[in-house]
Amino acid sequence: MRTAYHQQLANLTTQLGDMCALAGVAMKRATRALLEADNVAAEQVIGDHERIVALRARVEKEAFALLVLQQPVASELRAVFSSIQIIADVERMGALAVHIAKIARREYPNHVLPAEVGDYFTAMAKVAITLGDSAKSALISCDPRQAGLLHEQDDAMDDLYRELFGVLIDREWPHSVSAGVETALLGRFYERFADHAVEIGRRVIFINSGVLPNEDEISAY
Amino acid sequence: MRTAYHQQLANLTTQLGDMCALAGVAMKRATRALLEADNVAAEQVIGDHERIVALRARVEKEAFALLVLQQPVASELRAVFSSIQIIADVERMGALAVHIAKIARREYPNHVLPAEVGDYFTAMAKVAITLGDSAKSALISCDPRQAGLLHEQDDAMDDLYRELFGVLIDREWPHSVSAGVETALLGRFYERFADHAVEIGRRVIFINSGVLPNEDEISAY
Repeated sequence: MRTAYHQQLANLTTQLGDMCALAGVAMKRATRALLEADNVAAEQVIGDHERIVALRARVEKEAFALLVLQQPVASELRAVFSSIQIIADVERMGALAVHIAKIARREYPNHVLPAEVGDYFTAMAKVAITLGDSAKSALISCDPRQAGLLHEQDDAMDDLYRELFGVLIDREWPHSVSAGVETALLGRFYERFADHAVEIGRRVIFINSGVLPNEDEISAY
Repeated sequence: MRTAYHQQLANLTTQLGDMCALAGVAMKRATRALLEADNVAAEQVIGDHERIVALRARVEKEAFALLVLQQPVASELRAVFSSIQIIADVERMGALAVHIAKIARREYPNHVLPAEVGDYFTAMAKVAITLGDSAKSALISCDPRQAGLLHEQDDAMDDLYRELFGVLIDREWPHSVSAGVETALLGRFYERFADHAVEIGRRVIFINSGVLPNEDEISAY
């Protein structure tokens, strides 16, 4: 039989995992708002973010209460300790989706991006939703190999971002400077989303092993 | 007489404060690297970041040890709890300075930015160093009014970022798309630096009061 304490710890992890998956979904929806000038999708991402913010406040309170009331030790303390940092990363992942949705909403009914970069964003959104799901799996399983997968997916995102940047910088960009600037900043939001997911993976490795790997080491898992 | 425990808590805060000030200095130096194509300054920022990374690892270990050995309660637990989040913000502030320095180094001996935007970056660097110092003061004093100052300084940064963006988007930008993209991304690094400093201010208010203000509320302090 599980104690109430272990149930609280498990709830904390489940909620963090759910937030990761929600952030991935938000990113996918924000990308639709962006590429299809879909204002309903944009509004939904912006409205839904309240749920992530509310979850953040709740999870923080629960983590704090666990420290006060249960004084966890060893891997359980590492789990609570890490949840305090993970919560900031995952809220930021959701906030990045909101940034994208707000840019789409501001320009509606116009399209923000030139059609030729659309495929990069579709591909980056696909990686983002995979990252959200993988971060959730890594948290729930507390498996370092799952955490290592996040690093591979981040590499895929970095490759896409670099290619997108190549289109902007190296070739003849036939569009306006302002379209170029928007494309670069939007691309960066996807790249940062992936970085936060990798950070969550590092924390999972810490919960599991007690050692926080640096960014290069995580790929070894 | 202070106990060893209180000394450890005070050390934690002092180290966090020192890291904030270091991040501000790094930002100022990175700006010099950028605006004067000063590769020595760029290398120094990149090399010095190791100190921030090492401090981060040490502070995390100390915070963890405090939770294990001392089981702090009330405002002291809030201080340790918050330090776990602050450490991530301040390391990110340092990492943003490194991003700037690396762009300057990559383009050396060329200048990355068109001369006409130089003044914006000089002004943003000035705000950044003030933010680093203010974050340090807020942490050491644990004074909500000091934390509120960070919000005002962030407003100044936002204004500069918006003006810079106006130059890029609204007027006729006479330079290349690639110079426009670099200007936008670099500007964003300063803006994000300020956001992280404000986040530290929110945490100071939480340590002081037990209530985490949202981003709008912090200005009321």
